[in-house]
Formats: sequence, C-alpha cells, structure tokens
Amino acid sequence: MTARRVAIVGLGLIGSSLGGALRRSGANVQGYDPDAVSREIAARRGYVAAAHDDLPSCLRDAQVVIVAAPVPAILELLATVDAAAPEAVLLDTGSVKVPVVTAMEALPGAKRAIGGHPLAGKERSGPESADPELFRNRPFVLTPHAHTSGRTLDVARRLVEEIGARAVVASAEEHDTIIARTSHLPQVLATALAREIAPGDGRFAGPALYDMTRLALSDSALWTDILLANGGNLVPRIRRLAASLEEIARWVEGGEAAALSDVLRTGRERALGLRGGVAA
Amino acid sequence: MTARRVAIVGLGLIGSSLGGALRRSGANVQGYDPDAVSREIAARRGYVAAAHDDLPSCLRDAQVVIVAAPVPAILELLATVDAAAPEAVLLDTGSVKVPVVTAMEALPGAKRAIGGHPLAGKERSGPESADPELFRNRPFVLTPHAHTSGRTLDVARRLVEEIGARAVVASAEEHDTIIARTSHLPQVLATALAREIAPGDGRFAGPALYDMTRLALSDSALWTDILLANGGNLVPRIRRLAASLEEIARWVEGGEAAALSDVLRTGRERALGLRGGVAA
Repeated sequence: MTARRVAIVGLGLIGSSLGGALRRSGANVQGYDPDAVSREIAARRGYVAAAHDDLPSCLRDAQVVIVAAPVPAILELLATVDAAAPEAVLLDTGSVKVPVVTAMEALPGAKRAIGGHPLAGKERSGPESADPELFRNRPFVLTPHAHTSGRTLDVARRLVEEIGARAVVASAEEHDTIIARTSHLPQVLATALAREIAPGDGRFAGPALYDMTRLALSDSALWTDILLANGGNLVPRIRRLAASLEEIARWVEGGEAAALSDVLRTGRERALGLRGGVAA
Repeated sequence: MTARRVAIVGLGLIGSSLGGALRRSGANVQGYDPDAVSREIAARRGYVAAAHDDLPSCLRDAQVVIVAAPVPAILELLATVDAAAPEAVLLDTGSVKVPVVTAMEALPGAKRAIGGHPLAGKERSGPESADPELFRNRPFVLTPHAHTSGRTLDVARRLVEEIGARAVVASAEEHDTIIARTSHLPQVLATALAREIAPGDGRFAGPALYDMTRLALSDSALWTDILLANGGNLVPRIRRLAASLEEIARWVEGGEAAALSDVLRTGRERALGLRGGVAA
C-alpha cells in the first residue's frame, strides 16, 4: 500500500508544523511555497518529503490538500487548487472562516472542501519556528459548509486526530463569533497594552507583563488581515471591553471596593471555568 | 558566628518563598502568621526554622524583619514591629509603595526602614504555592525614603542579591507610577477579558487566551486592595487604554489597514524592547 499523499500549500509556521506532524504519522507530504528560503528550511528539517516551487507538481496525485496561508492568499488560491487536485479533500487553516467557507461553497469541488483552524499559534512565524507537536491536545476547529460531504468531514477529522489535536466541529459563523473574543480580542488587548510600555519599564516588569504582551510579538501584517477579516464580530467586542474598562476605572476612582471585588471574582470564576475549574 | 536572624511577618506565598530562599543562603528564619494552617505548612516545608503564633517571639533578636502582607496589614503592623525590633532593618513586600513608605518615614526607627516589592507573583497564593526560587532573576524594587540610612539600603540590597533577585532602587512615587502600567493595568485587562468568556469557549481557546487570562486567577480580595491603593496612578492608565481600544475599533471598522498595521507594529516593537529586543 502506498502512503497517503498530502500536499501542503504554504510552508510557514502552520504548514511546516502540519507537514512534520503528518510525516510522523506516515503520510507522504509534498510542500509548496513561493519563497525559496521557506522551501529550503522545510525540506532540510524534514517537514516535507519534497518542497516544490511550482504548485501543480506539489498537488499532483494529492489525496488531501491543506492550504496553510493567510486568509487573503487562501481566497486567491482556492479555485486553482480545486482545479489542479480534482480528487482531493481540500482543507485550509485560515484564522477567519466565513470568507473561506463562502468561497469553498462556490467551488466546482465544493463537496470535497472544508474549513479548518488549528488553535495553536505562536508569536513567532516561519518554518524556522515550526514544531510537529504544535497541535498536540489543542483544538482544531473544522467548519463544514452546506455542500461538504460526510466523507470529507471524516477525512478531515481523522487527519486532525492523527496530528494529536482535538477536532471541534462548528459552523463558520459560530467559529468567527467565538474566536473574536477568544483570539482576536486578546490580540488587540496585548497590542494596546504593549503600546503603553515605555523604555526602561523592564526594570519593573514581573511575569504578568510578559504573559500579557507575548501576543503583541505576532506578525503585524498577518494580524492586520485577520482583524479586518473578522471586523464585524470583533468591533462590538472591542467596544464592549473598552466600556468594561471605563466601568472598572470608575469603581477604582470612587473607592468602590465591593464592586471591584465582584468584578475580580467574576473574572476569576470565568478564568477558572476556561481551565475546567482548576487553576493551573 | 551565629547565623543572621531574619523574622518574616506573614507566611503566604511571598513570605514563605522568601523564608525558603533565605534559609538556603544560611539565615536563621523565624516566621509569624495569625493563621495556624499557614504556620503549619511553612514550618513543615522548611520555609522557616520556627513558625510563631505570637509576633513578639518571632521578632525577638531579629536583625532583619520582612513584613510580607497585603498593604493594609503592613500599615497596621509597622509601628508594632518597629517598637518590638528596635535594632532591626525593616523591609516590606507590599505592591504599592507610597502609602507604606509614608508610614515608614513617621516611625521612630525610620532610618532602619525601607520599602520593597519583589516582582515575582503567582496567580496562586498561600504557602502551599511557595517556591524558594520564585525571585531568581526577577526585579526586586527597593524604595528608600528621606530618612532611610545608607546601611539600611546596603542590608536590603544584599538580602535581595542573596535570594537571586535583581535589586532595582527607585523612589516610591516612581515605583507606583510605573507599576500602574506594568502590573496593575495588566491585572485589570486580564480580569476584563476573562469577564467576557462564555461557558464552552474553551473549545475555541488557543494558548493566547490562557496567557491573557492567567492573571485573572489571582486572589480577588488582595487585588481589590492593591488597585484601590494605587488608584491615582491607575485610573488615568485604564482610561488611556480604553481610548486606545476605541481607536483600534474605529480603524478595524473603517478598514484602515495602514493605521492598524502601524499600531500592531508599534506594539510589537515595544514588546520586543521589553524583552531586550529578542522575541523569546
């Protein structure tokens, strides 16, 4: 039996990490990236069996194609990939799902296409930061659309389990609504906080400030695209948080210990709930 | 030569960790806590040579006294400690320094008193979470006041170095101004973000959300006191951040990619600067 052939389009942090993880599970992984340095690193580190500089040879005979690129690039690539790999299950890894899934629904091969989003980023990008264990025990959201076949969902789900991630099936709309507060809002907060840091503040910085600004190290071009792509869900969330801060400022200003203690306790309960009730 | 005798008033996370660290460096550490369970844990784990249930016997013959308690408790204890240990250098570990140092300046033993703040918290409190390595390579701010003697500063500085921390000398005013943005603002942001989490969001949570809500797990009573004690510095900081969020919301809403990319880049540069220019 020949190993399953998986094509990965885009050999950045996510694509290279996926390649490494899938090769460990026995797949024949072919990669494509327009950037020669990324190809060289991904191939040298063994994240792909071969790194192609042309898309058609990467896609040839692929049973699964994963487009691991920023959302605007995914939208540009989908039709080409669908036409060049007419038998393959088509999965992406974009951070915002409604635009991707809307485009997938319109493809000739719509039934073979499904949206995906591994919740396993890093503040550093590129294949040099890749890690085949990046997805271990992390959620990997799968967003089928109206035409996604049951077989496509099964194939995607098995792939997610093979790399050690936890498959979470949701609609693209549900994903984008929730991710606005679990991922995009934290990114905006980390950036807004980091913007307040003055030179020399490191002398007065405990672990808290490092935790709270780590996300601000993320790639700014990538995040500009993500925040804009999910603006409809994100903007009301940002405004709600700004209002919450204004409320807290008033309580501190007025010496309202009971209200302040309440909000700190509520935050603590929600943070504990997120961790399954255990402070870790 | 007899080992130097250090009395630690308050055997919570910070007091017990200090005890453990100082005992490793050879000090004879005596502890006091009104809570029997805390005394029992601190003594059993060896963070103190003895845990006293009365303050005078803890303080007897102490060369250094460290008051490791929340700010309101420190303010209550200072005069008693000063009177009971009339030869000792007196250091505290409170998170806000102006009120403590103002009270220290008025003590009969003012010249032996100095403010302190180790920037090495944890989201879990109590001696059960203590760690003698908690202070390793972390800043420990020392805030002398107008009457603090040079000898007092020297003793405090040597103690900080013994536990592996980095001594940072600053005025209480400077400390409270900067700490408002490096510690108290992050706490408020983590709480405000955690407050937005809905049940089930964990299915859509990547490492970012865990990083950004870890601080929200902190003790709510302790943090109510801290935020109120530094309200004058903190309130304008919270409002400034809320305005910054409103600005970002407008850019996302208006599709202003250039402005958004700029703020993400600025945040990235500041976060890198905090880390000495290296993404770690």
